[in-house]
Amino acid sequence: MEDERISYHDSVRTVYKRIKEDGMTNVWDRYVAQGMGGDPDRRCAFCQAGVRCDLCSNGPCRGSAAKDKRGVCGITADGMAMRMMLLRNVMGASTYHYHTTQTIKTLRATARGETPFEIREEGKLRSFADRLGVDSSGEVKDMALRLCDFVDEDFDREYDKPSRIVELLAPSERQELWKEIGIFPGGINSEMMRATSSSLTNVDGDYVSLALKAMKLGIAMAYQSQIVNEYCQDMMYGIPRPHNMRVDLGVLDPDYVNILPNGHEPFLGFAMVQLAREQEWQDKAKEVGAKGLRIIANIETGQEMIQRWEMDDVFYGFTGNWIMQEAVLASGAVDVFVSDMNCSMPIDPLYAEKYKFRLIPVSDLISFEGVTERLNYVPEQAREQAAQLLQMGIDNFKERRESVKPVTGLPMREAVVGFSTESILDALGGNLDPLLDAVKDGTLRGIAGMVSCTTLRDFGHDNHTVDVVKELIKRDVLVLSMGCGNGAVQVAGLCSPEAKEQAGPGLKSVCEALGIPPVLSYGTCTDTGRLGDLLGAVSGALGDVPLPDLPVVATAPEYMEQKATIDAVFALALGLYTHVNPVPTVTGAPDLVKLLTEDCKDVTGGLLNVETDTVKAVDSMMEHIESNRKKLGI
Amino acid sequence: MEDERISYHDSVRTVYKRIKEDGMTNVWDRYVAQGMGGDPDRRCAFCQAGVRCDLCSNGPCRGSAAKDKRGVCGITADGMAMRMMLLRNVMGASTYHYHTTQTIKTLRATARGETPFEIREEGKLRSFADRLGVDSSGEVKDMALRLCDFVDEDFDREYDKPSRIVELLAPSERQELWKEIGIFPGGINSEMMRATSSSLTNVDGDYVSLALKAMKLGIAMAYQSQIVNEYCQDMMYGIPRPHNMRVDLGVLDPDYVNILPNGHEPFLGFAMVQLAREQEWQDKAKEVGAKGLRIIANIETGQEMIQRWEMDDVFYGFTGNWIMQEAVLASGAVDVFVSDMNCSMPIDPLYAEKYKFRLIPVSDLISFEGVTERLNYVPEQAREQAAQLLQMGIDNFKERRESVKPVTGLPMREAVVGFSTESILDALGGNLDPLLDAVKDGTLRGIAGMVSCTTLRDFGHDNHTVDVVKELIKRDVLVLSMGCGNGAVQVAGLCSPEAKEQAGPGLKSVCEALGIPPVLSYGTCTDTGRLGDLLGAVSGALGDVPLPDLPVVATAPEYMEQKATIDAVFALALGLYTHVNPVPTVTGAPDLVKLLTEDCKDVTGGLLNVETDTVKAVDSMMEHIESNRKKLGI
Repeated sequence: MEDERISYHDSVRTVYKRIKEDGMTNVWDRYVAQGMGGDPDRRCAFCQAGVRCDLCSNGPCRGSAAKDKRGVCGITADGMAMRMMLLRNVMGASTYHYHTTQTIKTLRATARGETPFEIREEGKLRSFADRLGVDSSGEVKDMALRLCDFVDEDFDREYDKPSRIVELLAPSERQELWKEIGIFPGGINSEMMRATSSSLTNVDGDYVSLALKAMKLGIAMAYQSQIVNEYCQDMMYGIPRPHNMRVDLGVLDPDYVNILPNGHEPFLGFAMVQLAREQEWQDKAKEVGAKGLRIIANIETGQEMIQRWEMDDVFYGFTGNWIMQEAVLASGAVDVFVSDMNCSMPIDPLYAEKYKFRLIPVSDLISFEGVTERLNYVPEQAREQAAQLLQMGIDNFKERRESVKPVTGLPMREAVVGFSTESILDALGGNLDPLLDAVKDGTLRGIAGMVSCTTLRDFGHDNHTVDVVKELIKRDVLVLSMGCGNGAVQVAGLCSPEAKEQAGPGLKSVCEALGIPPVLSYGTCTDTGRLGDLLGAVSGALGDVPLPDLPVVATAPEYMEQKATIDAVFALALGLYTHVNPVPTVTGAPDLVKLLTEDCKDVTGGLLNVETDTVKAVDSMMEHIESNRKKLGI
Repeated sequence: MEDERISYHDSVRTVYKRIKEDGMTNVWDRYVAQGMGGDPDRRCAFCQAGVRCDLCSNGPCRGSAAKDKRGVCGITADGMAMRMMLLRNVMGASTYHYHTTQTIKTLRATARGETPFEIREEGKLRSFADRLGVDSSGEVKDMALRLCDFVDEDFDREYDKPSRIVELLAPSERQELWKEIGIFPGGINSEMMRATSSSLTNVDGDYVSLALKAMKLGIAMAYQSQIVNEYCQDMMYGIPRPHNMRVDLGVLDPDYVNILPNGHEPFLGFAMVQLAREQEWQDKAKEVGAKGLRIIANIETGQEMIQRWEMDDVFYGFTGNWIMQEAVLASGAVDVFVSDMNCSMPIDPLYAEKYKFRLIPVSDLISFEGVTERLNYVPEQAREQAAQLLQMGIDNFKERRESVKPVTGLPMREAVVGFSTESILDALGGNLDPLLDAVKDGTLRGIAGMVSCTTLRDFGHDNHTVDVVKELIKRDVLVLSMGCGNGAVQVAGLCSPEAKEQAGPGLKSVCEALGIPPVLSYGTCTDTGRLGDLLGAVSGALGDVPLPDLPVVATAPEYMEQKATIDAVFALALGLYTHVNPVPTVTGAPDLVKLLTEDCKDVTGGLLNVETDTVKAVDSMMEHIESNRKKLGI
């Protein structure tokens, strides 16, 4: 693979060389090895076009829309592609919701005083309780428990009974539409069962029906799983507020005991930071010859943490996103890799062996071939579990330091992280007006929500994300970044104040006036729901402008996995112009492609754009923004 | 496709000729069209071996265990194959459980007097309530509602809290083992979320862990979904008791208005029979020139119905199983095809147009491309909905009868259906002793639970099922048949008393002494849980013999879809020797194959056998039975 396709980031390209020297299997080589005919991006034409199915024993089958070649059961190519997409959507929704259930468990235990955490943001708890109609009088802990009861009840609601959470949080214009077209959701658990059961062989073979089921599930997921999750995490760990954070692989100093929480759930990560900030633990680390003990943020667990907590010499910084996992692990500076519910590569055990670190699953969901050690997170035991993990790191340090040569001289920079609805309001002086005025008067042309993963497909690690975002800010579009794509732009320097120089004149002036970077770091992919909620507020502040008419776009320049697919489906239900890359595996399904990229506009107002060229993609986004500006008369 | 591979049944082969003459797409031709290199059974080697993945945008990927070729994320071929199998398992479990939730809704509404149904089997309700520790005093309707509350609470239990239903129903020896190896399940909804979330990219790539997760889900599904479902249906519609039933395509008389409930849920089917038995509706049918109005049982909805209700001139008979769906529809005798939650082919709209019948989805799960008419089942409206469906049939009759030439002279026979634990006990005079004595003294060598679908792979429609069952009864093994495979043997004549002539001398003498056929028709695939419960009782009656030591085997000679996969996984968890055919799509995963076909024996006592040759497969089953007989000293 040519150098520039390895990664946008110098740091990653540097460690890649080491990985190659060490003869280790790695994501870049495995990607190339999957290519057909010498083209790393070319794969089985049926799989890549989404027109195959291996669900039943009459298959595996391949479909062709052009020849009306159907599966043995009679399902069309469109049906095959959308059914598999719905299954991916269910997987994404399920994983988001799993995280939410862990958060609610943690909040319950915290309210009871049984965790090392506390309810730091009483105001957020109260305001969310008020929005949900939960009694917000009396003691804080009782209010928290009532909130937990309320959301748990909604999660278990049947899919044909309207979700109270969605009724209370979603913009009324959307609610009316969703009811009209039959996609106003019930409880998330029942919605998942409905979608999963519909995907069985000989149940729902109709791509239109399957797509509507996906949207119904997406709405349930965004409001019940994502918003509830993030807001409840805010209550315990703090509302994100802007602050500086060290980023890139240079945050890994081999002379320290380095413990890396990884995945999506920040619970044990926060517990470890709390503990590691105690002198006792720093002393313990020094006793084994380390300069100290550090907790290093990674991927989405990292985003959850860095958006909320300030850095210091203990909570030192953030490495980067998913594709660079093996680069992190091969740095020679890792002592414990703490794998919570998401984003740990199946290959990690080989790296643990080679680079002498402990690989510890802390979620029942996670497993690696051959790894028997684990420490499943229990809220009530978080402090003891955190202590065990720190001790593992200390015990590991000597052998790792003695036997593994670290990669040195890796770069590091600072990014501004921690934007949220509340902190944006704070930055604006209490209301959205300064921002909306800039949009109205054209200084800002619009706003883009960039929720993305990272993938090697077509462009290589983070290249396309960085390019799309650069192109957007150049055209005076303020970008809110989320997910692994947020890691991409943080490390690439676009979340730093000096990035204003890369922005167009309008955006640059807004950055200067408000003291913000042109790309606002807005958290993880789980914050997609939070963005939906913000857009609802923007719509309200503009006088109930329908969501599809806002000068707003969503973009996922490097979507990778199944959580991203349900985020995109939610964006469509919300009525957003939604750019995704790579092209999803549905291209062998022409009617489905037409539904998603054309007809959806007449259903929800949302639209999927799958342009792969950076400039053309942003051209289309700008067309949408400008056409909406015209519609609004601004 | 050569004639004998079309189907075991003359009737189906006859209608196939008509389908061909009419130039209609059909399951047989579509099967052949999917074949590669002139071999209808050969498909893409990667798909067929289960070593491919298209979940994320770094893929699609292909794996190879021999070359240690992994997915881009690093997942092994074993991980790919088991992860996709777990996803299939989740789909099966979800669909079973969906049916259960509909049954519980119906039971609640029935207890409140809001449906056309009643609680016919107070004894069953009471005994089940007693087993579950639900207060069985007071009024019947209150007891039923308490039972519903109890099971609903268990369904929503978290996956790490032990299911009360499993604790109260499963054999204690199994419970201990399941706790020991960490697969004692919690509530089914949470187990589904756990399994689904584990299947996400970069979550669980460990085939052993994934297989254990499948078993945990399978146990939850069998006790919570299947047993609760069937026992609650028994309460409302009657415990299955032996009686004769007309079977095969000859039950379709074109001179009648024929309405065919199809799928898995019998609710509207029963409601229609009740209504159609009223003279008023027969008169209405006669007014349009029909000889009368009939409800004809199909596939698994049909099995649910025929096992419980006696035939007459209105509830006339049973057509057959899934593969013959197009033959049923092309018979020229169908007026309404009532599609509930399962087993309706995506191709059906083309048949509805050609053969002039109404295709009506009655479940929110079901959809067909281009079909907009639907009537989603609501328990409280069951009578009105049934009336609407009957009226549609009457309205349809004239045009269908005038424009479609029916296939005539199709065969019909009678089968004995309706065996259940209770009715077997009745047949034995109140306890299991006569049967167990026959097993102990060797007259019967053992018992086989045949739970199967029907597939065209390798042998063609029902051929392999009939062959395996014939081979088993020849060797003095009593067969309990379930699922679409039950339809196969009913139509093939093996559930008729005269089939004793095809049995070995021991089984023949038992048939004569007890007046039973050599194959006991035991219901649908959903009755797998009921069979597990019966085996628990057999184990108890023999002095708590561990389940794996019983002279019992499970066989699925023609498994087809995802419900079957979770049934097989449950059988493994239950400790059964489990024969399945076709070979599942896991053959590219050698470690997984070894786990399932060898090592599992040391984990649960269960074992998967994938022998495709009929005689060799039954040889292996007999070896297991005889070795267990030796172990038990019988």
